[in-house]
Amino acid sequence: MLQTVFRHLDRLYPDMVAWRRHFHMHPELSFQEVETPKRIAELQRSFGLAVREGVGGRGVVAVLEGAAPGPTVALRADFDALPIQDEKEVPYRSQVPGVMHAYGHDAHTAILLGVARALSAVRNQLPGRVVFIHQFAEEVTPGGAKAMIEDGCLEGVDVIFGTHVWSGLPLGTIGYREGPMMAAADAFRIVVQGRGGHGAAPHETVDAIAVGAQLVSMLQQVVARRVDPVQPAVVTVGSFHAGSAFNVIAEQAVLEGTARSFDEGVRNLLEREIERVVQGVCAAASARYSYTYTRGYPALVNHERETRLLVDTLSQVYNANRLVRMDPIMGGEDFAYYLQKVPGTFFFTGAGNPQVGASYPHHHPRFDIDERAMAVAAKALAALTLRTLCGDGVLDGARLTLPEASQPVIA
Amino acid sequence: MLQTVFRHLDRLYPDMVAWRRHFHMHPELSFQEVETPKRIAELQRSFGLAVREGVGGRGVVAVLEGAAPGPTVALRADFDALPIQDEKEVPYRSQVPGVMHAYGHDAHTAILLGVARALSAVRNQLPGRVVFIHQFAEEVTPGGAKAMIEDGCLEGVDVIFGTHVWSGLPLGTIGYREGPMMAAADAFRIVVQGRGGHGAAPHETVDAIAVGAQLVSMLQQVVARRVDPVQPAVVTVGSFHAGSAFNVIAEQAVLEGTARSFDEGVRNLLEREIERVVQGVCAAASARYSYTYTRGYPALVNHERETRLLVDTLSQVYNANRLVRMDPIMGGEDFAYYLQKVPGTFFFTGAGNPQVGASYPHHHPRFDIDERAMAVAAKALAALTLRTLCGDGVLDGARLTLPEASQPVIA
Amino acid sequence: MLQTVFRHLDRLYPDMVAWRRHFHMHPELSFQEVETPKRIAELQRSFGLAVREGVGGRGVVAVLEGAAPGPTVALRADFDALPIQDEKEVPYRSQVPGVMHAYGHDAHTAILLGVARALSAVRNQLPGRVVFIHQFAEEVTPGGAKAMIEDGCLEGVDVIFGTHVWSGLPLGTIGYREGPMMAAADAFRIVVQGRGGHGAAPHETVDAIAVGAQLVSMLQQVVARRVDPVQPAVVTVGSFHAGSAFNVIAEQAVLEGTARSFDEGVRNLLEREIERVVQGVCAAASARYSYTYTRGYPALVNHERETRLLVDTLSQVYNANRLVRMDPIMGGEDFAYYLQKVPGTFFFTGAGNPQVGASYPHHHPRFDIDERAMAVAAKALAALTLRTLCGDGVLDGARLTLPEASQPVIA
Amino acid sequence: MLQTVFRHLDRLYPDMVAWRRHFHMHPELSFQEVETPKRIAELQRSFGLAVREGVGGRGVVAVLEGAAPGPTVALRADFDALPIQDEKEVPYRSQVPGVMHAYGHDAHTAILLGVARALSAVRNQLPGRVVFIHQFAEEVTPGGAKAMIEDGCLEGVDVIFGTHVWSGLPLGTIGYREGPMMAAADAFRIVVQGRGGHGAAPHETVDAIAVGAQLVSMLQQVVARRVDPVQPAVVTVGSFHAGSAFNVIAEQAVLEGTARSFDEGVRNLLEREIERVVQGVCAAASARYSYTYTRGYPALVNHERETRLLVDTLSQVYNANRLVRMDPIMGGEDFAYYLQKVPGTFFFTGAGNPQVGASYPHHHPRFDIDERAMAVAAKALAALTLRTLCGDGVLDGARLTLPEASQPVIA
Repeated sequence: MLQTVFRHLDRLYPDMVAWRRHFHMHPELSFQEVETPKRIAELQRSFGLAVREGVGGRGVVAVLEGAAPGPTVALRADFDALPIQDEKEVPYRSQVPGVMHAYGHDAHTAILLGVARALSAVRNQLPGRVVFIHQFAEEVTPGGAKAMIEDGCLEGVDVIFGTHVWSGLPLGTIGYREGPMMAAADAFRIVVQGRGGHGAAPHETVDAIAVGAQLVSMLQQVVARRVDPVQPAVVTVGSFHAGSAFNVIAEQAVLEGTARSFDEGVRNLLEREIERVVQGVCAAASARYSYTYTRGYPALVNHERETRLLVDTLSQVYNANRLVRMDPIMGGEDFAYYLQKVPGTFFFTGAGNPQVGASYPHHHPRFDIDERAMAVAAKALAALTLRTLCGDGVLDGARLTLPEASQPVIA
Repeated sequence: MLQTVFRHLDRLYPDMVAWRRHFHMHPELSFQEVETPKRIAELQRSFGLAVREGVGGRGVVAVLEGAAPGPTVALRADFDALPIQDEKEVPYRSQVPGVMHAYGHDAHTAILLGVARALSAVRNQLPGRVVFIHQFAEEVTPGGAKAMIEDGCLEGVDVIFGTHVWSGLPLGTIGYREGPMMAAADAFRIVVQGRGGHGAAPHETVDAIAVGAQLVSMLQQVVARRVDPVQPAVVTVGSFHAGSAFNVIAEQAVLEGTARSFDEGVRNLLEREIERVVQGVCAAASARYSYTYTRGYPALVNHERETRLLVDTLSQVYNANRLVRMDPIMGGEDFAYYLQKVPGTFFFTGAGNPQVGASYPHHHPRFDIDERAMAVAAKALAALTLRTLCGDGVLDGARLTLPEASQPVIA
Repeated sequence: MLQTVFRHLDRLYPDMVAWRRHFHMHPELSFQEVETPKRIAELQRSFGLAVREGVGGRGVVAVLEGAAPGPTVALRADFDALPIQDEKEVPYRSQVPGVMHAYGHDAHTAILLGVARALSAVRNQLPGRVVFIHQFAEEVTPGGAKAMIEDGCLEGVDVIFGTHVWSGLPLGTIGYREGPMMAAADAFRIVVQGRGGHGAAPHETVDAIAVGAQLVSMLQQVVARRVDPVQPAVVTVGSFHAGSAFNVIAEQAVLEGTARSFDEGVRNLLEREIERVVQGVCAAASARYSYTYTRGYPALVNHERETRLLVDTLSQVYNANRLVRMDPIMGGEDFAYYLQKVPGTFFFTGAGNPQVGASYPHHHPRFDIDERAMAVAAKALAALTLRTLCGDGVLDGARLTLPEASQPVIA
Repeated sequence: MLQTVFRHLDRLYPDMVAWRRHFHMHPELSFQEVETPKRIAELQRSFGLAVREGVGGRGVVAVLEGAAPGPTVALRADFDALPIQDEKEVPYRSQVPGVMHAYGHDAHTAILLGVARALSAVRNQLPGRVVFIHQFAEEVTPGGAKAMIEDGCLEGVDVIFGTHVWSGLPLGTIGYREGPMMAAADAFRIVVQGRGGHGAAPHETVDAIAVGAQLVSMLQQVVARRVDPVQPAVVTVGSFHAGSAFNVIAEQAVLEGTARSFDEGVRNLLEREIERVVQGVCAAASARYSYTYTRGYPALVNHERETRLLVDTLSQVYNANRLVRMDPIMGGEDFAYYLQKVPGTFFFTGAGNPQVGASYPHHHPRFDIDERAMAVAAKALAALTLRTLCGDGVLDGARLTLPEASQPVIA
């Protein structure tokens, strides 16, 4: 059956490109998605799937019921865009000023639509069920995943898969990792409250800059001394603002930063130890402080069994040499919430190709992908889904191949 | 003759109050003074003095020629105001929004006018010459003193005196100090140039905040370890601004500060050692930097002989118990330039009196003085001037007394 | 054949205990081993092996030639002891004051002797060759491995295995990890050269303590800001000595530390960035410095194929549940050198058991092992060796079992 | 009468040299003085003075009763030596290994003996009383002054004078200062209690070196930010000792230092703020600490009236140009205790002269003085004493002159 599905996907490739470009031209910011979910729902309905809209707020869940009993596989794609001005010169460039699909969620959506369409064509042979989770608001905490889960999108789901197109991997490669793959990404805010005064009379003040500086120095010890060296962790103070005149001692220093970790114990330690440093250093200088630590997405931890299934499946239908075991990434992703509920794995689909202009990092105003990555991702997801639903026998010698290059080279 | 002059000053006190309140109601910012010098020139001319306007830009110099040859004494008052909103509730409150005589320069001007008027009344008995220097722009570097000196205001001057009303000293007291009295007040600006990047990938960046923080910590060593402990010095970082998002590593940190000292050797050391720290710490972190050190006014160094003359004169005409030897003040004052050219002394006239609302620090929106301080200051300057011009014999038993309290208590 | 070998090992267990206790009672320090290698050589010769002594200095290499052509497997055990006073109260306690087998090398040696004896019993059925590498001086850089390799101990070797008894793992478990498992362990020494002087006159000095302190603070940034967060690294200043009197400013500060890493790029970065910090901070304070960075053992990197062979073999003859995938360990081990030359894997054999007093960490004066770990390790090595020499067929249903507890509980 | 006394002192100069050299050859350490006070007592008795020995322990007080009622003047000299090996090559070099008069107390003693002898010659004309305080143990806290005062040495004393020979001032000059002249010299000891461990596992430890380093950095803020810039203050960490191996994290760091100040308020602030920093930084790192702050001698504060008497007297009998108003000195001196009880002044007598080898700083193994400084000091003390006892009339045109150079140039 996989051969059939791959053939469907080959035929659907131009549609996926068209869908993706449509979404690319009409991006919508997180928590402000209106047209995107509407369009997704229309398409999924047109493929014959049962669609629920407004899931968790703005999410869309489309269900493909197979012809026989069997497991339930969920596939997820996010569909929100970023507040970045598109500076690419391509026909499908964003038509919304200051908003852009600079992370690839447009492609994720097109991929899922492609898979849905292709699997719907073999529905009669399909046991089980496939749930297509189109998620809103991945870019901004608290994200859409949590709300969609609470609204039941994982009900009955046995296993979940997701992918991210990745310009840092060349087209044709697939990046995987079992265990912790993406970091818990938290935010903290420290306000050092000193006592301002004349720059020439430090003894009558509590110099918030001197205290804040000492604080930043000592915060380095949190990662360097208190976290187990084999546990990745980051504490970054991203902004430090204090004082309004060169000759007046600052009353207040505001420090904002991010803390990243993979292990929940390390995460708790970071939250606690940052405050310990703030508290101690402020006490040492008679300053007061406020401290807030806001948890973002948890660490994304891929399940071992499903990751092995990914590697094994792609080794058979594709090419083991194109599989890359990646280092963990310190960035965050709310796919993590799904993996806390059901087994699954999240992998990266190489989409970088300088020859088609896909050489800018994610978040860059000229970010683009080699769209053929969508074909790779769709086939990988389809293969995983079918193998899960039908067993090993489904691998009928089908080979994952890439479409011809069709994308115009970008000036 | 001093008795006569003191009597004149007693009679002039209501005029001084009126003049001061006029200037108080119509303050003008540094380098923007127009009406103030015009009014000063009018008054000085009306006293029969030879007036030169536009000295060094906006200064006014009035000369009282005595009846016989003799030395030349200069007296100086500054007349610019500050960009502060007057929040006092008094009839003479500033009528210019956001501008206020919050440092007492209005009183300085009135004092000098009073002395000029009183001395002009005894001109026939007066040997020598008295030069009244009404200076613009004391509050803002490069100040008006330098330009007025370059424009000749000190030509032929043998000795100079000046005073500052001071709310930190109670009405009736006079603060003096021989040698260094006010600090050299310099400014520095450090730009730490790092390399920005994702907050989760510090290793791909040069974190300008981490470098800037280390810098502030190590700058403390300049005063604590490199300056002779018996030499007063201050290095203050007054503002520290870096970064625009909690999760992005800052590319640049901008630090601005002030360095204060009394000794020219220490001043040079501060300029040099701050840069040494900046250079070393930036090198330690592969950051680049720019550094500018801008010299403000030099230290104000009172001459010993003239300070002793002040103390001795006031001990005789007033009361040695009301004389206070002050500690040096880390603030700056461009009277320093005059003292680099001719001998003289600069003293503080107590103007604080909570009972009349004169209890706020200089620069405060409710700053005010007990106006009787003007009478004290005018008499002290007159006595010094006469003793310098006429010798010890002029101290004819005259006693410096204060006017009755006339100022309404401020709600 | 594995069943036969396991039976031999069961019978040999009391010998292994006796050998281990003999070595435990007569420990010899690194580079001072005389009797230990002599005894090993005697025993190996008594088993019929060809023995070469003095390999690389003090090492012993014993070769068991099989009866047919085949691959060459090397097994390695180290045999030096530590300068620690044995405080255990057991009959086999060290008889050399201040010297103790506190790391388990006595057991390693006994294990290898057991395996040699057992395999020699089946020599006639054995294809290939087994090389027993008894290594001196693992505890002290530059270690014995390098010299033994240079002296040819790996000649003709196709694959190498080694194990470490580990009190941190409970008896019965086996710890493994593919890829980097133990850290590159380097040493650095920083001498900050200031200029001493009277404690009351810091301005006449360069305060080596103030500089050294700033240095330690800023060194935290090396790990916290410059190393990729997913790359384990440690920079520890272990000793800081400066000054001889409370009221005299220290001329010199001597800092010694260790730097740990797994990745050679990170290792190079540590060496370079530590110096950058030293150089910059010293420049910032007009201090001079000397810096030496001495490389210890490289990171121990287990080969993936051989590690999988270990896991697979033990899953079959033992119990997959007793296999633990370990986190990397920041400690060093010169087995790393062998793995740079030939494929292989190094694993940890659980030896902790509070019930027999084996509950103290390595290096502790009361360190001991549950000696049954020797049986586990010997059988694991034998199984690995036979499977490598003879192929999968050798796994004839043999089961790795532990001896009865025989060790007296320690008071 | 002063002329007579000066003549006596001129004649006594060779005796003073002899006495000084005797003491120089037989130095005794603080609190171990036996022969020195015995010899002083003998000499003072031989001059006809009433002598009390064992005052406050090891002090000697000799009283010269005048012939008429009058005030009581005390003169003080200290007589203890230092634990330094004399490396000078002179005939009068110390004969006690490792002990040396490297601070000039030998000269102080000889000066006082000279003055006593000279004044005893004019006793019949003398009103009042002169008390010669020969003090033990100035070099080591708690010093001898306190104990001698408690034992009554200041009873009935109206005014006290003392001097210190000073190699930093050229022979022939006298250094004076009214108000604070020498610092309060305190000691502190900080023990940072961390938790030791393996250098590769910082997260299992509390790194006492990292904490101690942060502490030293932040201590710089005490002087740089918390003390009034016009108030001299020093906080020096003179020794920092932690750790015993490069690869073991230190359990403990011991920091010892000195704090200097002139103002009692600043002194209290230093004691308090150092602890605040210690407490805060240790809390920030989960370390514990102990802190002791031990007060040494208080600040030596010269009385204004007596200092003016010194200046005026020497301006008349000597040369105003040779009087130097000194900056405060951050070193300590227990003469401070006397000045807390009775008015007086402590001045410095220039004793530097490279031509006679007197060019090494105090405490140097080659320290020496130009002995003619003793004549200057003796005459200055005699003049002060007589003017105090007899009034201004005693200045009978006597001129303070120096002896011919008699000291052999030192190789």
